[in-house]
Amino acid sequence: MEKDTLDPWGTSAVKNYERLQSEFGIAPVGPLVKRFKKPSPHMSRGIDFGQRDLALIADAVENNKPYAVMSGIKPDGAFHLGNKMTADDMIYFQSLSKKAKVYYAIADVEAYADNGISFAESSKTALRNVADILALGLDPEKAVVYKQSEEIRVMKLSTIFSKGVTNNMLKAIYGERQIGLYMSALVQAGDILMPQLPEFGGPKPVLVPVGADQDPHIRLTRDLAVRYQSDFGFIPPSAVYHRLELALTGGYKMSKRVPESGFTLDDSAVEASRRVRIAFTGGRDTVEEQRRLGGRADVCPVYDLYRFHFAHDDEHVKLVYHECTEGIRLCGECKQEAIGLVKGFLEEHHKRRDSLMADAKELLARSRKYLMSAGTQ
Amino acid sequence: MEKDTLDPWGTSAVKNYERLQSEFGIAPVGPLVKRFKKPSPHMSRGIDFGQRDLALIADAVENNKPYAVMSGIKPDGAFHLGNKMTADDMIYFQSLSKKAKVYYAIADVEAYADNGISFAESSKTALRNVADILALGLDPEKAVVYKQSEEIRVMKLSTIFSKGVTNNMLKAIYGERQIGLYMSALVQAGDILMPQLPEFGGPKPVLVPVGADQDPHIRLTRDLAVRYQSDFGFIPPSAVYHRLELALTGGYKMSKRVPESGFTLDDSAVEASRRVRIAFTGGRDTVEEQRRLGGRADVCPVYDLYRFHFAHDDEHVKLVYHECTEGIRLCGECKQEAIGLVKGFLEEHHKRRDSLMADAKELLARSRKYLMSAGTQ
Repeated sequence: MEKDTLDPWGTSAVKNYERLQSEFGIAPVGPLVKRFKKPSPHMSRGIDFGQRDLALIADAVENNKPYAVMSGIKPDGAFHLGNKMTADDMIYFQSLSKKAKVYYAIADVEAYADNGISFAESSKTALRNVADILALGLDPEKAVVYKQSEEIRVMKLSTIFSKGVTNNMLKAIYGERQIGLYMSALVQAGDILMPQLPEFGGPKPVLVPVGADQDPHIRLTRDLAVRYQSDFGFIPPSAVYHRLELALTGGYKMSKRVPESGFTLDDSAVEASRRVRIAFTGGRDTVEEQRRLGGRADVCPVYDLYRFHFAHDDEHVKLVYHECTEGIRLCGECKQEAIGLVKGFLEEHHKRRDSLMADAKELLARSRKYLMSAGTQ
Repeated sequence: MEKDTLDPWGTSAVKNYERLQSEFGIAPVGPLVKRFKKPSPHMSRGIDFGQRDLALIADAVENNKPYAVMSGIKPDGAFHLGNKMTADDMIYFQSLSKKAKVYYAIADVEAYADNGISFAESSKTALRNVADILALGLDPEKAVVYKQSEEIRVMKLSTIFSKGVTNNMLKAIYGERQIGLYMSALVQAGDILMPQLPEFGGPKPVLVPVGADQDPHIRLTRDLAVRYQSDFGFIPPSAVYHRLELALTGGYKMSKRVPESGFTLDDSAVEASRRVRIAFTGGRDTVEEQRRLGGRADVCPVYDLYRFHFAHDDEHVKLVYHECTEGIRLCGECKQEAIGLVKGFLEEHHKRRDSLMADAKELLARSRKYLMSAGTQ
C-alpha cells in the first residue's frame, strides 16, 4: 500500500487525509467545530480536516484568555493561493477574541539564503505581502509582524534548540537532509514558540494554521516545547491543518514552484482567467458521458477554486458540487462562472491592497518599535 | 603512524606540531617573525608555531590599513590560562597599529544551551571576563565587545552559511557530529566574518588567534569566506596558532574541563600555588639521575608556566630551560620559583581587575550602543 509522505520542502501528495490521522496522530476537526460559534468556511466545508490541541484555542476563546496565532511568509514573491489559505485561517482565528494576537514572521534571511533575494528586495515584497493580509481582513491592532533578520529571540531559541535535538530525532521526522533544511526547521520552531517568551506574556496556547504537508514542523516544535518545558514553561503549540489545493495543471498540490498550477494575488485578472480557462478539470471525455455520469468534483481544481476561495457561501459550494456530479453543469460553463468570481475577487483585492499600503507600512513600523521595546529575558 | 587529530570540542592531543603543517596546511610563523618590529613573547618563544595568511596582517600594519582581531569566550566560568593565551595574542596584535580593532564575542547563547547558564549569570561572568582582558592590556578604545544573544548579524550570517554548506563538507572537517555542534561552528564562522560586513567598513584582513585544536573552525570559515565572496567580498580570515599548554596533571592539553590541569585568573594565589606544587613535571626518578641526565623541560607543564606566561623575559625562559636540561635546577626549587611568579602575577592581576570593573562595564555599554547604531545592511 502506498504511503502518504509529508515533506514540507517537497511536493507532498496527500491522497488520503484520513490516513494522516492514524499515521501521524492528527486528530479530526469535526468534533470541535461546534465549539466555535460561527465556524469558518474552512471548517464548514471540510477544508480544515485535522488539528492538534485545537481545544486549547476553543478554551481560550470561551474563557477570554490570551492566545496567539502564528504564521509567516518567505518574501520570495507574490502572495499565492496557498498563502491565502493559511492567511484565511489566521484571520479567522484572530477574529474570535479580543485576547487573540497574531505573530507574523517574514523569513527574509531564508529568502536571501535560499533564493538570493536581497534584504532590500525582501523589504519591498514583505510590505506588499502585509498589505495582502490586511486586505484579506487581518486586524492590525491585534498583530505583530517581524522580520527574521531583526528578531534575535527567534535566533536565540533556534540556537538553543539545536543543542537539544539529536540528528536521529531530526532524521526520524524529516529523513536525511542537508543541515540548512534542519536549521530552517529549528528557526521555524523558534518562530512558533517565541510568543510564549516572558516578554510576550509567557506561556499561552499558540495556534499554527498550516497545510497538511507542514506537519513535520509542528511535530518537531511540539517535541521541543516538551523538551524545554522546565526552562520556558512552553505549552506545545496547537495546529489546524488545511487540505492542499489541487493544481490547475493537474496533480495533488498547487505549488509556488509551478506558477501555472495556481495564481498569485498579484496576477492580473486577465492572466488568472487564462489559467483557469486552460485548467485541468474533473470532467468526462465527452459531453454525453458527463451528462450521464456527472463530473468528478473531488479531483477537480476548478471545483477547489469555488470550495477553497471564491464561492459566495457554503450553499453556493454545495450547489456547484451537486450540479457538477449530477451532470447538470459542464466544465465550460463552470469555468466561466469561476473566472467571473476570480476576476471580481482580484480586482477588488488589488484596489483594497493598494489603499492599504500605508497601513502595512505603519503596522511594520509599529511592530518593530514594540518588539525592540519588549525586554529580552 | 599515529595521526594527530584536531577536535575543537575534545581534548586534542597535538604531539607533533610540524606535522600539522603538512597535514592541514598550517604554515610556520618563523619566516614572518622579522616582519614584526617587536615580536611577541609567543613568537620569540616559538609558542605561536603556525599561521594562515598572517602576512595580510603584517601588510596591514606596515601600510597603516585597517584590520580586525577576532576572539571571544564562552562565559561559563572564570578566565583560565588557555583564555589568557588567546587574549595575550589578541592584545599583542591589537597593539601593533592604530588601525587595529578587536571584536570580542561573548557566547552567552552557547553557555545557556550547553551548560544551562542563565543569561543574567552570563552577564555577570562576562563583565568579569572583560575586566580580565582589560587587566591583561586590552586597549578599550580599539575594541568592540558583543553578546551572542544581542548580535543579530552573527545569527543572520550563520543562517545564511547553513544553506551554503553541505553535510559532507562538515563531516570532512569535523567528522560525524550532532547538529548542535555544527551549528556552533557556523555561528563561530559568523563571528569571524562579521567584522567584514559593510557596517563595519567592509572587507578587511581579520586575524583569529587560536589554539592548534581550533583549526577546523578556521578552515570552515575560510571555505565559507570563499563561497560567499561574490556576495560579501570576504577576505578569508587569517589565523595564528599557539601551542597547547601541557596539563599540570600530566597530559598534552590543559583543559577547562579538568580544573586541576591548570588554574583560572580567579583562583587564589594559595590555590594556584597548591596546584603547581603537586604538578606533574619532566623530572627524573631520582636526584642523582636528574643531575646526570638533566630534566625533560619539553614535557614539563611547570616549564610551560615559565615559557607561556610567567617568566620575566625570553632570557629567563632560556635560563630555566638550560638549568633544567643540564641538571642544574631540580623540580622542587623550580616549582618554588614558579609559585613565586604565579603568586605575584595573580595578586597583581586581581588588584588590577578589581580596579577595572567600571571600565569593563563602560566598554560593554559603549559597544552595545555602537553596534545598535551601526546600520544593518
